This record gives sequence, structure tokens and C-alpha cells, in this order.
Amino acid sequence: MKEFDLIKHYFSEQIVKRKDVILGIGDDCALLAPAEHQLIAVTTDTLVAGVHFPVNTSPKAIGHKAIAVNLSDLAAMGAEPTWISLALTLPEVDEQWLSEFCAGIFELCEFYNVQLIGGDTTQGPLSITVTAQGLAPKDKFITRSNAKAGDWLYVTGELGDAALALKNLQGKVDLVEADKGKVFEQLDYPKPRVLAGQALRDYATSAIDISDGLISDLGHICKASKVGAKLNLENIPISTVMRETLGRDKAIALALSGGDDYELLFSVSEDNKVGMATALSNMGIPTTCIGQLNGTEKITTVLDGEAITLNAHGFEHFAKSEA
Amino acid sequence: MKEFDLIKHYFSEQIVKRKDVILGIGDDCALLAPAEHQLIAVTTDTLVAGVHFPVNTSPKAIGHKAIAVNLSDLAAMGAEPTWISLALTLPEVDEQWLSEFCAGIFELCEFYNVQLIGGDTTQGPLSITVTAQGLAPKDKFITRSNAKAGDWLYVTGELGDAALALKNLQGKVDLVEADKGKVFEQLDYPKPRVLAGQALRDYATSAIDISDGLISDLGHICKASKVGAKLNLENIPISTVMRETLGRDKAIALALSGGDDYELLFSVSEDNKVGMATALSNMGIPTTCIGQLNGTEKITTVLDGEAITLNAHGFEHFAKSEA
Repeated sequence: MKEFDLIKHYFSEQIVKRKDVILGIGDDCALLAPAEHQLIAVTTDTLVAGVHFPVNTSPKAIGHKAIAVNLSDLAAMGAEPTWISLALTLPEVDEQWLSEFCAGIFELCEFYNVQLIGGDTTQGPLSITVTAQGLAPKDKFITRSNAKAGDWLYVTGELGDAALALKNLQGKVDLVEADKGKVFEQLDYPKPRVLAGQALRDYATSAIDISDGLISDLGHICKASKVGAKLNLENIPISTVMRETLGRDKAIALALSGGDDYELLFSVSEDNKVGMATALSNMGIPTTCIGQLNGTEKITTVLDGEAITLNAHGFEHFAKSEA
Repeated sequence: MKEFDLIKHYFSEQIVKRKDVILGIGDDCALLAPAEHQLIAVTTDTLVAGVHFPVNTSPKAIGHKAIAVNLSDLAAMGAEPTWISLALTLPEVDEQWLSEFCAGIFELCEFYNVQLIGGDTTQGPLSITVTAQGLAPKDKFITRSNAKAGDWLYVTGELGDAALALKNLQGKVDLVEADKGKVFEQLDYPKPRVLAGQALRDYATSAIDISDGLISDLGHICKASKVGAKLNLENIPISTVMRETLGRDKAIALALSGGDDYELLFSVSEDNKVGMATALSNMGIPTTCIGQLNGTEKITTVLDGEAITLNAHGFEHFAKSEA
């Protein structure tokens, strides 16, 4: 395992030096001095090769995604990301691979001023576990469980492009070369909505990041908040590529279930709609109202004014009704 | 992956409910409110099946060890353990396995009042990554880098039993049945020196937990503190089983390099020797003085008054000189 010591080189080359990191990589533990009156948000996500990303994914994209999916969870709480611990399991030490992987990690870390504070490198089948931490002011965080009937449902950005890229990789959908760039960017380099999450502290009654798929993640909010929701499917934001490749209805179906979007789904009370829209618009973050919460504890879907029945997986029945 | 949701059941059955956990398992992040004027210590360790534990290790022992090795790192900083995040990658969902694995995890967590605050469960080759956090008062933590020439070197407990158990598993050493219990207990259920670590805040100038092996871990302290060390090998604490199975000298050689001990190696100034010895003795924690630090930046070893030359791996040359 001596060569695994070499890896420390790559990880000590980060630029970010936060003042609240008293001791970084190199001792038994890192030591942190978080600002007072802040809560610490903690999340952990594992990416396994062949499960969470195709085995031939570029090392830079793997590094990016390992950080992005965790920053996305912090964003959904309204937390400001601060520290990362990285557990990397590698079949062998490949310096080229490591160098590109670290480039993917550090690019995001530098952008958000997040410091890698430690971790562990072991030999085994390729797998990456990141524990990300962040700060949120006391009483200013966002959970899944505080949404109320009557609140409006919003999403940031557009949904489904990552799922479309994956379908293309799997040979299930053809894409013209000119369209591949954008949708593969969404799959390989998802942009966590870090700034949107922090802005939403003042407006959102609940938030979650869309990793499992819109319907599934909306289900988590509904269950935690004991509410139901009515979705207006024609309002679900999909890209021009999605619409042109699949047609509107199949595109919507994929956007409902695809996952890997890392956009935020959040609820806002009637009183806060304008404030939220202004704040996020000023930050250049697109948001779309896609429905409203209600007291039914069920999710119902409407397309062009007509009720659509969804099964447990959201899109299957819908897709069939299109076939 | 629906069945992986079942796993949440097992993890939500923990008893520990810390007041500083504002939000535990079940949202995008956990939220923590650490006591003020405390530093947060963070460590991450991965255990891969077949690398860090034999593939036929009992699930309870795997769970125990995944927590223990991390609490051991916190102990080496003098931190009080508080929160655990668990990333578990499993080839398949086996309820019996999970139930025993969780028993191993929660037994240690309950003993030390550590709360599981979240994590991720994924499908893949068996691997466990734990990120453990703890608290240490500002200016009362212990690093590897503050040891001084003249300080005395100590270890807690006895070294080498875990390495002996591993050699027995590998068919390299025979053990009589009556001896197996104790040495396998050390391999499968190492006891992190959590309380010793906290007591040492007031006395130790440096500390590390012995995971790689005494010589290797002493090397980390020497390098970080820019000191050397002279070890009196006959003082290295080894168990009666070790001594009777291998003979004194081979037992010492194994204790120098074996690793997996999870005892603490620490340095104490001349002025603090008595205070440290009294404090740890009152807590029932055995400590042994095994040498002294000096200004050479080298590690030298003496056995029965005679200098022994060690090679890079510590024990090989020594073992050869015994052969």
C-alpha cells in the first residue's frame, strides 16, 4: 500500500484554505472551528462505479459528481458548503486518473470555497464516498417537513436532460451530435444549486434536491410534511433538446421520473411567491411553478386540464398511455 | 433498489438521541448544534472486505470495527465522540447480516453516546465508510506535531494480539484453543481508547492511535514533530499469549509492526509523567513507558541494552536476526 501514500500528494494540492479549519489533512482528525450561532449540516453520498455512473465515465466527471451530489444535499437545506471528507477506494493507483479526478473535485471546491479536510484511500473496487458539511444560521435552514397545504411548488432549472443522456448511453434514444454536449454536461457535470438554496432560506417552506426523480422526491416532501400535491405537468420545465428528441409528452414523462437532475424542488407560501421570484431572478436562477400542495396526502397530476393517473413509479403508466 | 429502503429501518432503531442533534436521519442533511467554544474533530475510515477484514468476519465484528477504528482516531486527538455518518455498500440485502451488523455498530455508539446522524446505502462490493465527529475544547486537543525532544513515549494496553490472530487465520501461527478467545477479541472487537484520549488532553504533547503498527505510527509522530525516538524494546507491552506462542523476541517484533492495535501511542513531558500515570491509573487504563524522544529525527531501538538496527519495515531485519 506504499504507493497509496502518493495519493496524499494529489489531495494536498488544493488551494482552498479556510480560516475555520484549524487542522486539515495529515493528523488523526481534522479540527474545525465553526462560526458561532450556526448549525452544521452533514450529508454523505456514495458513488459506486457501474451503479451511480457508467464505468467509462471520465475521472474528472466522477470527481465533479462526487462533490456535486453532496453540495446539492447541502443546498436543499439552505446550507453554505464548507468542508469535505473524501473516502476513495481504487482498484489501483493510476496517476493520470487521479490527477483528472482531483481536477474535478477541486474545481467545484474552489468555486464554493469548500476545503478538503481529510479522508481515506483504500484499495478495492472503484467507489467514492464524500461526507460534506456546511453551515446554516439557527432557525434559517430548510427541511422537507415544513411544507403546508396551499404552498406553491417550484423547481429550479430544467429537468430530464441527465436522464436523456443516460438513455442515449444505453442505446435507448438517439441524439444528434449537436445536442449531446448539453445533455451530457447535465449528466456528467451537474451544477448543485448552492446559491439558490441559501437564497431560499428566507422564502421556502420545504426543499429537496431532485436526485431520485421529481415524483419520487416530491413524495418525500409530501410524506415528511403530511401534505399532498397537484402537479401541472405541462408546466414542468424541459429543455428544447428533450422536447425535440422525445416529443413533449414523453419528455415530461422522463422529467417526472428520470432523476440525477440535482435541481431544487421547493415550496413557497402564497405570501412569499413574489419575494422568492424576485430574489432568484436577480441571481439569474430560473424557477418554474409546477403545482400546489394540498391536504390530500396524495400526488395528482394534470396535463392540459385533464387528470392523469400515475402509478407508483410515476412515469410508467403515463408513458404507456402515450404509446 | 426498493429493498434498500428497508435498511433505513435498521438504522432508525438506535437508542441514542443527543440534544445537539437538531435533525437526524431522514432529510437531505443532518443538522447539528455543537456546544460553543468546542472544536469539531472529523475523521473518515473505509473498511473494504478482504482488505481490512477477512471476508468471513462476523457482521457484528465488522460493524464494531467500522465504528471502533474511527473512534480510535478521535481518541488520538483527545476528542469526545458525538456523531457518526455511515456509508454502507452491500452486494445484496441480507436482513440477518444487517441486523448483526447494526448490533455491532449500536453497541459501541450506545456505550459512548454517539448518534448515527445519516449516511447512504448503496449496492456494490461490501465496503463501509464511517465519518466520525467529536468535540474537543479549544486549545485542549492533541496532535501529532507537538512532541518535544526529551518527552517520554507511552502506549496504552498491550500490542500485537490482533496481528497474532491474523497470522493464525492465515495459517502462519498455531494457537491453542484456550488462547484464541482473547487474541481474536482484539482483532474483531478492538476497544478504542476514548476515555484515555480525553484524559490525555491535560498531559500528552502528542498522540496517535496504533493502526499501521507501532514503528510506523511512531514514525508519523516523529516526522510531524521533527523529533527522533529511542525505543526500549523489552518494555513493549505484549500479552502472555504472545510471549508464550512466539517467544519474547518474535513477539516484540510482531508488536512493533503488526498494527490493528488501536491502542494509543503518546508522548508526555518529564513534568507531566506522574500526573499522567496517576490519572490513567485511576481510570484503570494500563500505560507503559517504552522510550524517549530526542533530537535526532531517527528511531533507534535497544533490546536488553544492545542497539538493534531496524529496516524501513521495522520488524523484518529484527525478525531475521532472530531466525
